[in-house]
Amino acid sequence: MTSRAEILAVAEGLSLGAGPAALAVDVGGTGMKAALFDAGGRIVDARTAPTPECTHSAATEVMDVIAGFHSAFADEHRDHPVTEAAVVIPGIVDEASGIGILSANLGWRNVAFRELLNERLNLDVTLSHDVRAAGRAEFDLVEDTPADAVMITIGTGIAAAIRVGGRLISSGGYAGEVGFTEVAVDTAEGLFRGPIEHIASASSIAKRYSQRSGTEVAGSLDVLDAVHAGDPIAHQVFAEAVEALAAMCAQIAAVVAPATIVLGGGLSGADELLDGVAAGLESRLDVHRMPSVRRAGLGPVAGLIGAGLLTRDVA
Amino acid sequence: MTSRAEILAVAEGLSLGAGPAALAVDVGGTGMKAALFDAGGRIVDARTAPTPECTHSAATEVMDVIAGFHSAFADEHRDHPVTEAAVVIPGIVDEASGIGILSANLGWRNVAFRELLNERLNLDVTLSHDVRAAGRAEFDLVEDTPADAVMITIGTGIAAAIRVGGRLISSGGYAGEVGFTEVAVDTAEGLFRGPIEHIASASSIAKRYSQRSGTEVAGSLDVLDAVHAGDPIAHQVFAEAVEALAAMCAQIAAVVAPATIVLGGGLSGADELLDGVAAGLESRLDVHRMPSVRRAGLGPVAGLIGAGLLTRDVA
Repeated sequence: MTSRAEILAVAEGLSLGAGPAALAVDVGGTGMKAALFDAGGRIVDARTAPTPECTHSAATEVMDVIAGFHSAFADEHRDHPVTEAAVVIPGIVDEASGIGILSANLGWRNVAFRELLNERLNLDVTLSHDVRAAGRAEFDLVEDTPADAVMITIGTGIAAAIRVGGRLISSGGYAGEVGFTEVAVDTAEGLFRGPIEHIASASSIAKRYSQRSGTEVAGSLDVLDAVHAGDPIAHQVFAEAVEALAAMCAQIAAVVAPATIVLGGGLSGADELLDGVAAGLESRLDVHRMPSVRRAGLGPVAGLIGAGLLTRDVA
Repeated sequence: MTSRAEILAVAEGLSLGAGPAALAVDVGGTGMKAALFDAGGRIVDARTAPTPECTHSAATEVMDVIAGFHSAFADEHRDHPVTEAAVVIPGIVDEASGIGILSANLGWRNVAFRELLNERLNLDVTLSHDVRAAGRAEFDLVEDTPADAVMITIGTGIAAAIRVGGRLISSGGYAGEVGFTEVAVDTAEGLFRGPIEHIASASSIAKRYSQRSGTEVAGSLDVLDAVHAGDPIAHQVFAEAVEALAAMCAQIAAVVAPATIVLGGGLSGADELLDGVAAGLESRLDVHRMPSVRRAGLGPVAGLIGAGLLTRDVA
């Protein structure tokens, strides 16, 4: 889980721009992060907490944690009274209505987070989607990004933030839910044909390696280490995931034609991933625009910074 | 090829809205269509011509035909002096720069149509893409269409017009070029894995039927007739095309999540196509938004009417 120190280290060099002092919260699958930004858009402080378990009351408990972040910042930083807040959550999120439509991992359906948080915090709260918020931060703050760009986050799940003509698209909250898109990939075990998350998510990479090698690994970064150590099974499993990602990126290119694809998530540190996806796209795209491929710059803090940026839109 | 009478019959009941008297031209793969609209946005007259062959000079010859349409209308309808024109062409079209980047079928690359036509016609000319223009007409004029909608034209090729948040997207001209997207479909001959156009375009349907049945057919509508006559091979070939289209629509749903998908092209008259794509989407989509599926209403005249609408944007 990302620590307070890591958040501060990444955010220190960034500015959201002027606006109200603001609370930003990123609700992740395992951990929640919060940041307090001052009127200059600089980070003042950060806090983290484990995400409540997936139960009937998860949404309420998540809001309890958010209220706790808010009062802790209020107590400790009286010189930065917060007047705006933005909360980003996973799953299907309708920004326009402020409703969390679905989170399979956290177990909620149709929760009016914005309205409930407005009352609870007595603040103007903006609700958005974690991956779209991360995309906003990557597109706006990291480097000059073309008006047509896509950021893909590869974690436990796979989702995309899609910017077209300089605007992030939402489509009622359903845009960029590419994790279940079907891909067909040749593998050492024959043709894989199924949802991209079953072959290329971080957890699937770890699972496929464990199954094929007989060696249990904790996560996809262990598989990457094994690739670097010359393990042929790790190499194969990783290459198959990369092929699947390239196939998915080619689908995205055919529909929205980004000029740049940004890859995020823990594995995006690997040159093999970036180069492999770029090569796979080169071999697949013909009449389409060939996007450049780069890695995300803000790591696990992108969603939190993106939430911070949303308090600037509102102002 | 669509006749003058057919154009007039479809366009008669429509209005583009008030604006300048305008020339609209749709450059198709085999035929060109032109319409003259009055200041009330009503059609005054229409003309057609064969599209010039694919040669080095095709672009110039296409512009000659357009100039011919213009002067014929000017001669015959002196009471409707044209001050705006819009031309829609196939291939990759960058509306912002007015350039036809590529047409594989007509053989041009990087032709500055807008600038050349501005000079040639001494008019303000808007350049756009045939399928995007057709989508505009279907979305704006046929029935109330949600802000997030996609129109897919199934003809010699397959391409999509994509509307997100009420705006058609272009992405430098490359958006919606879904014809080469890879799909994996079970067929009577084993797994098909390749570009959608090789299994589901009108020409591929005819070709696959001819090969499998040994009976040469002229086009996909003959295959559809055979389906209706109970021919099992025709049924199979058509069902495989429908499955491929559903797979492609599912990819599109994962990326831009339309609330409605409009199917156009000659085959879209078939209930089997619409019902089959809807059923295939139902079985593929889970967390995504399930789009409604409807057929296009303007038939082969949609691109021409869409071109007409572009003269209203400009005004």
